[in-house]
Amino acid sequence: MKRAKIKVGIVGGTGYTGVELLRLLAQHPDAELAAITSRKEAGVPVADLFPSLRGAVGLAYSDPAAAPLEACDVVFFATPNGVAMGEARALVERGVRIVDLAADFRLRDVAQWEKWYKQEHAAPELVAEAVYGLPEMNRAAIRAARVVANPGCYPTSVQLGFLPLVEHGVVDLDHLIADAKSGVSGAGRKAETHILFSEASDNFAAYGVPGHRHWPEICQGLAQAAGRAVGVTFVPHLTPMIRGIHATLYARITREADFQALYEARFRDEPFVDVLPPGRHPDTRSVRAANLCRIAVHRPHGGDTLVILSVIDNLVKGAAGQAVQNMNIMFGIDERTGLAQLPVLP
Amino acid sequence: MKRAKIKVGIVGGTGYTGVELLRLLAQHPDAELAAITSRKEAGVPVADLFPSLRGAVGLAYSDPAAAPLEACDVVFFATPNGVAMGEARALVERGVRIVDLAADFRLRDVAQWEKWYKQEHAAPELVAEAVYGLPEMNRAAIRAARVVANPGCYPTSVQLGFLPLVEHGVVDLDHLIADAKSGVSGAGRKAETHILFSEASDNFAAYGVPGHRHWPEICQGLAQAAGRAVGVTFVPHLTPMIRGIHATLYARITREADFQALYEARFRDEPFVDVLPPGRHPDTRSVRAANLCRIAVHRPHGGDTLVILSVIDNLVKGAAGQAVQNMNIMFGIDERTGLAQLPVLP
Amino acid sequence: MKRAKIKVGIVGGTGYTGVELLRLLAQHPDAELAAITSRKEAGVPVADLFPSLRGAVGLAYSDPAAAPLEACDVVFFATPNGVAMGEARALVERGVRIVDLAADFRLRDVAQWEKWYKQEHAAPELVAEAVYGLPEMNRAAIRAARVVANPGCYPTSVQLGFLPLVEHGVVDLDHLIADAKSGVSGAGRKAETHILFSEASDNFAAYGVPGHRHWPEICQGLAQAAGRAVGVTFVPHLTPMIRGIHATLYARITREADFQALYEARFRDEPFVDVLPPGRHPDTRSVRAANLCRIAVHRPHGGDTLVILSVIDNLVKGAAGQAVQNMNIMFGIDERTGLAQLPVLP
Amino acid sequence: MKRAKIKVGIVGGTGYTGVELLRLLAQHPDAELAAITSRKEAGVPVADLFPSLRGAVGLAYSDPAAAPLEACDVVFFATPNGVAMGEARALVERGVRIVDLAADFRLRDVAQWEKWYKQEHAAPELVAEAVYGLPEMNRAAIRAARVVANPGCYPTSVQLGFLPLVEHGVVDLDHLIADAKSGVSGAGRKAETHILFSEASDNFAAYGVPGHRHWPEICQGLAQAAGRAVGVTFVPHLTPMIRGIHATLYARITREADFQALYEARFRDEPFVDVLPPGRHPDTRSVRAANLCRIAVHRPHGGDTLVILSVIDNLVKGAAGQAVQNMNIMFGIDERTGLAQLPVLP
Repeated sequence: MKRAKIKVGIVGGTGYTGVELLRLLAQHPDAELAAITSRKEAGVPVADLFPSLRGAVGLAYSDPAAAPLEACDVVFFATPNGVAMGEARALVERGVRIVDLAADFRLRDVAQWEKWYKQEHAAPELVAEAVYGLPEMNRAAIRAARVVANPGCYPTSVQLGFLPLVEHGVVDLDHLIADAKSGVSGAGRKAETHILFSEASDNFAAYGVPGHRHWPEICQGLAQAAGRAVGVTFVPHLTPMIRGIHATLYARITREADFQALYEARFRDEPFVDVLPPGRHPDTRSVRAANLCRIAVHRPHGGDTLVILSVIDNLVKGAAGQAVQNMNIMFGIDERTGLAQLPVLP
Repeated sequence: MKRAKIKVGIVGGTGYTGVELLRLLAQHPDAELAAITSRKEAGVPVADLFPSLRGAVGLAYSDPAAAPLEACDVVFFATPNGVAMGEARALVERGVRIVDLAADFRLRDVAQWEKWYKQEHAAPELVAEAVYGLPEMNRAAIRAARVVANPGCYPTSVQLGFLPLVEHGVVDLDHLIADAKSGVSGAGRKAETHILFSEASDNFAAYGVPGHRHWPEICQGLAQAAGRAVGVTFVPHLTPMIRGIHATLYARITREADFQALYEARFRDEPFVDVLPPGRHPDTRSVRAANLCRIAVHRPHGGDTLVILSVIDNLVKGAAGQAVQNMNIMFGIDERTGLAQLPVLP
Repeated sequence: MKRAKIKVGIVGGTGYTGVELLRLLAQHPDAELAAITSRKEAGVPVADLFPSLRGAVGLAYSDPAAAPLEACDVVFFATPNGVAMGEARALVERGVRIVDLAADFRLRDVAQWEKWYKQEHAAPELVAEAVYGLPEMNRAAIRAARVVANPGCYPTSVQLGFLPLVEHGVVDLDHLIADAKSGVSGAGRKAETHILFSEASDNFAAYGVPGHRHWPEICQGLAQAAGRAVGVTFVPHLTPMIRGIHATLYARITREADFQALYEARFRDEPFVDVLPPGRHPDTRSVRAANLCRIAVHRPHGGDTLVILSVIDNLVKGAAGQAVQNMNIMFGIDERTGLAQLPVLP
Repeated sequence: MKRAKIKVGIVGGTGYTGVELLRLLAQHPDAELAAITSRKEAGVPVADLFPSLRGAVGLAYSDPAAAPLEACDVVFFATPNGVAMGEARALVERGVRIVDLAADFRLRDVAQWEKWYKQEHAAPELVAEAVYGLPEMNRAAIRAARVVANPGCYPTSVQLGFLPLVEHGVVDLDHLIADAKSGVSGAGRKAETHILFSEASDNFAAYGVPGHRHWPEICQGLAQAAGRAVGVTFVPHLTPMIRGIHATLYARITREADFQALYEARFRDEPFVDVLPPGRHPDTRSVRAANLCRIAVHRPHGGDTLVILSVIDNLVKGAAGQAVQNMNIMFGIDERTGLAQLPVLP
C-alpha cells in the first residue's frame, strides 16, 4: 500500500524562500502541495509570478482567509517576521505542524526577541515549545516538534562551522569571530534601494556591524552546544552574487587536537554536511541550489588561530531546503527525500 | 524484471558540457556512468575537478586509451571540435552509439564544414549517416541513429524560434534576422583572456559579425524546415551571465496568419518547448539549469515585422540536456527521463 | 580676466543621472554648482547619499521651494517625467536656461507625448520651442535654445548609429530594426522588484516589445534626419551590467555606397563619436564612464543587410554627459570642457 | 616659465595595472608618456589592445630592447614578479628612478622574498635601498628614493586599516586578523581558468589560507609601524566584482582609547585616506576608479574587539594610483596632481 502524501500548505510564498520551497516540494515524491497563500497575489497562478514553475506548479495563490491550511499536515511560513506568531496557534491546535522560515520562534528568550525584532511577541507559549530546526544539533527534538523554528541563513553556516570546536571546548569561547558573506537573495525579494542591481552589483560592503538580528541567534545556538555562554563577533557582508553564504570563522586554540579529525567525526553521519580534505577552499557554487554545507578546516602557518570555511546556499540549506529536511524528519521519512538535487555548476 | 541500465561513456568531460552531462546523468534513473576520459586529468577523481559532484560521482577520469568505451551502449563526446570524427568510427563499428556535443557531424556539406572549422574532415562517411539531433525536427531519425550530431546552442534557440514560421512559409525567408545573446559559459572552460571575469563582466559586445560557425548550421536547419534555401543574418553577443541564450528573431510577414496559434500548435506535444501566452517576455533564468526552450511571439504595433523571443540554457537544452534527450530517444525510453529538474530561480 | 563660471542648479539629484551630473560638474572647470534640490532629502548632504562624492561635493539637498534656482544660469532637471514641464516656464521667464534629462520636451507632437506618457502636458508652448539636444544633429539650434530636451539613452545610441544611413537614404527606411541592450542603471534608482540584483543578475530578457516610450522618440529623430517618415522595430533588453547600451542595428541596403567611409565622413568632426576601423566590435566598457559613442559598420557575408554596432554609457553620453555637452554648447564654451574623463576599463 | 614634464616609461603595460597607469598618466598634467614596452605586443598601438584609450593614447608598444627607457625620468614596472629586479640596476645607474608595481622590492628580507616568490633575487643591493611606497608611512623616504616598491593591493588596505591601532599599541599585536575580499582584477589579466567569468561570477571563495605572498608584506609593514614583530592571520577571498578590496580587520583591545578620534587624527592630513563618521560601512564602489582609501571604525556591542572596515580600488590606491602618487612625491609636485578623478558610482 502506498503511503499517503504529506499535505503541505505554504503561507506567503511570493518571496525567494517561497519559490524555492515550491521548486523543492514540486519535486518531492512524498509531499503534496495543497495550498499557497498571498493576500496580495490572491487568484494569480504561481507560475505567472515565477515563470520558472510553468508546467510544474499548477496552483494559484489563494487568499489566506480562504485557504485550506487547517486540512494540511504541515504549514510552512515563508512570511516576514511577525506573521507566523499570530497564526501558528490556531493551526497547531488543530494538529497542523508548523515550520516557520522567519524568525518568530528562533530566540528562546522572548525579551531578547522583542528587542531585536522591535515588536511584542504574540505567542510566547509557542516559543517555549518550539524546536530550533538545525537537524545537526536537534534532530531528536525536531522529530516530535509541533513548531519548528527554521534557522536563519547566517546562523546555519556559522553554527555548523563552529559546532565541533565549541562542543569540544578546544577554542577560546569568548572570542569567536564570524566574518560572513551573503549573496543578495538573502535580503529577500522586497523592493528596496540598497539591493538594486545597480547598487549591489560590482560592489562589496559590510553592514549591520553594530548589531544584526542573527547575532543573538548564533550566540544562543553556540551556547547550547558549549553548555555555557559564548562571545561572538559577527560581521555580515553583502556580496554581488545571487545565492550563497561563505562564513570565514576564526577561533583561538586553547587545547590541542586533531581538528580535521574532529570535524570529520562530528559530521560523518550527516547527509548534508561535507567536510573537505585538508587544504581545500570550498566555493559557494559547489553547493548552489543544493541542500549542503561544505566545510574546510585550516590552521595557517601552524599558529594558534584556526580558520574554518563554511559554505551553504542561503536559500536551500539556509532556508527552504532545511525546512524540507525538517519536514522529512518530522514525518519520519528518509531525511534526504526530495533533496537529492545536485549543485548547479557553473 | 528491471531493464538493464544504459551504459554510458563520456569522452573529454572536463569542460562545462562535461560537468553538466555528469550532473544530469548522475540523477538519471536509467543510465549508468561507466567511464569518463581525459588525457590531461587521467587518474583524478571527477569530484576533485568539480567539487559540486562530491558525494554524487565517484568516478575518476581515465586515460582515453584505457577506458572501456567499447563496452558502452552510448558514448558522448564532450570534446573540442575535431576529436569525435577521429574516434567515432571504431566505436560505431562495435555497436556503440555516439552523441557528439561538438560540431563534427553537424554540417552535412563536408566542404562547408572544412571551410568553417579549418581542418580536413576525418570521417565524411559518418557525416552522411549522422542525424542532426534536434528532436523537435528529427525525432524519428534520431531513434534509429548510430551517430547523433547534438546541435549547437545558438542554433537550438534560433531554429526552435523560427521553426513554425519557416515551415509554414509565412515570412520572408531570404531576410531572417537572429540577434542572439549568450552567457559566457557558451565559450567553454578554456583559459582565454576575453572570457576572464574582469573582461566579460559589466560589459556587453557583439562578436563574430563577419562570420560565425553557427551560421551555416542555422541556415542548414532552417533550409531543411523550409524546403528551400534561406537567408539569415546572425549576430551573436557575449552577455555577462553564466548560462542562458536569448535569441531575438525578426521576420517580415509575407502571408497573414494567427502566429500565436501557429506556435502553440507546432509545439503542443513537445515536452521541452513552452510557448508563452501573448505579451510575455521570457527571461533566461526561467529555464536556468533545465532542459527547456520558452518562446514568445510578438508583432509590435501590428506592423509587418514579427519579433520572436526564444530562450534556453545553453548548457542544457543547448548542450548536455539535449544530448540526454537524444539518448532517451535513441534507447526508446520516455524522452523526459532524468530531465525533470526545475529551473533554478533566482 | 577670468570668465565668470556658469551657475548651475540641479532639480532632483537623487537618482543615477543626478549623481552622474554631480560627478561631472564637480570636475568641470567652468561650472559652479549653486543648488541641488530634493523634497525628500532636503537638508541631507549630497555626500551622505552618495559617499563617492565625499570631499568633492559639499552641498546639501535643499527644498525645491527654497532653492536659489532663479539665480542660476542653467537648471538641469534630473527628475521623473512630468516634473520639468510644470516648473520650466517660471525659470525660463527669468532667463534661466533649462536642460531636461527626462522626457517632457522630447516629442514635438504633444498628443503623441500624452499618449505615451499617460498624462496631460503642462507646457505645450515650451515643447514648441524646445530643442532636441542631440548635438550631432542639432548643434546650431542647441546653441540658442532656452529649453533643451536631453535625448533618451536608447534614442542616443540608435540615432547616432543610423544617422549616416538615414541621412543618405541608402537603406530601406521603412524597415529599420534596432535591437538594443541596456545596463540596469537605465531603469533608474527606484525601488522596483524587477531591477533587484537577484532578479536582474545572471539573467537576460527583452521588455516592452509591444511598445516602449523611446520608440516614438527614435522615429521622430530619424524622420527628421531622413526628411520623411521611417519605420522602426525597436526591441529593448535588460542586461546584467550597471552601465552601457549596445544597439545592434539592422538595415536593408537599397543603394550601394562605401558605408564605412560614409560613417567616417559623417562623424569626422564630432568630438564624442568614434567610428571604429572595419571588422571591430565595440564593447560597452570601452566607453564606460565617458561621454563617447563608438560605432562599427558591418556587412556580413557581403549581403544586402548592414549591421551597425553602437555603444554608449547610458548615464554619460546617454544622459548626464550629453547634458553637460549641451550646456557647453549653450554657453559657448569648448564642447569638450569637463568631459575629458577616459573610460574606466576594466 | 613652464616646468618640463616628467618623462615616463612603462615596462610591460599590457595588464590591468598597465592600462590603469595609462588612464591616469594620459590625464596627468605634469607627466609625459615617452615609452611603453611589451615584447609580445611590440608594434601594436596601445589603443588596439585597450579600445578605451582610443583617441587618448597614441603610443604603440615598443620592444623592450628598443625603448628609450634610459631617457626617462621615471620608469614604472607593470610586469610580473621577477622582471624589475633584472632591469632596474641599469636604469638606476643612469639616473632613472624606478617604481615597481610588482613585488620585487617589497620584502626587505631577501631570504623571505626568495622563499615566497620561489626564485633567486637578482638585485639584493637594490632591495636594501628600495623604499616601500606607502606614502602614509614612508613619505619622506619616498621623496628621495631611487627605487620605490609600490605596495601590494591587500597590504595597502590592511596596513592603512591597522596603522593607527598598531602605531599606538592599543590592541593585541600578536593576534591581528585581516579578512580581505578582492575583486577579480586583482588576479591580473592572465588567461587562467579560475578567474574565468563562468568560474568567478556568482561565486565566492577564500584562497591561499595556508599562505599568501601578501602575508609577509603585511607583517613587515605592521612590524615597522609597531616597532616590534606582529602576528597576523590573513585570509584573502575572491569576490565577484571587477575592482575593489574590502578588508575587514579584527583586533582585541588591550588599552582603552577613543578609537574613532585616533583614526581621524592619524589621517587628518592625508589627501587619499578618508575616515568615515561613526556607524558607517564603506562600500568598495565609493572608491571605484579613484585613488582613495575609506575607513570605518566599529566596536560591536561595546565589547573588546574592534572591527575596522577599509576599502580601496585595488587597481588605483592598490596599484597604479598609488604609483602615480609616489611619482608625484618623488618629483616634488603636489601629491594630488592627476589623481583628482572622482569615484564612478553606480
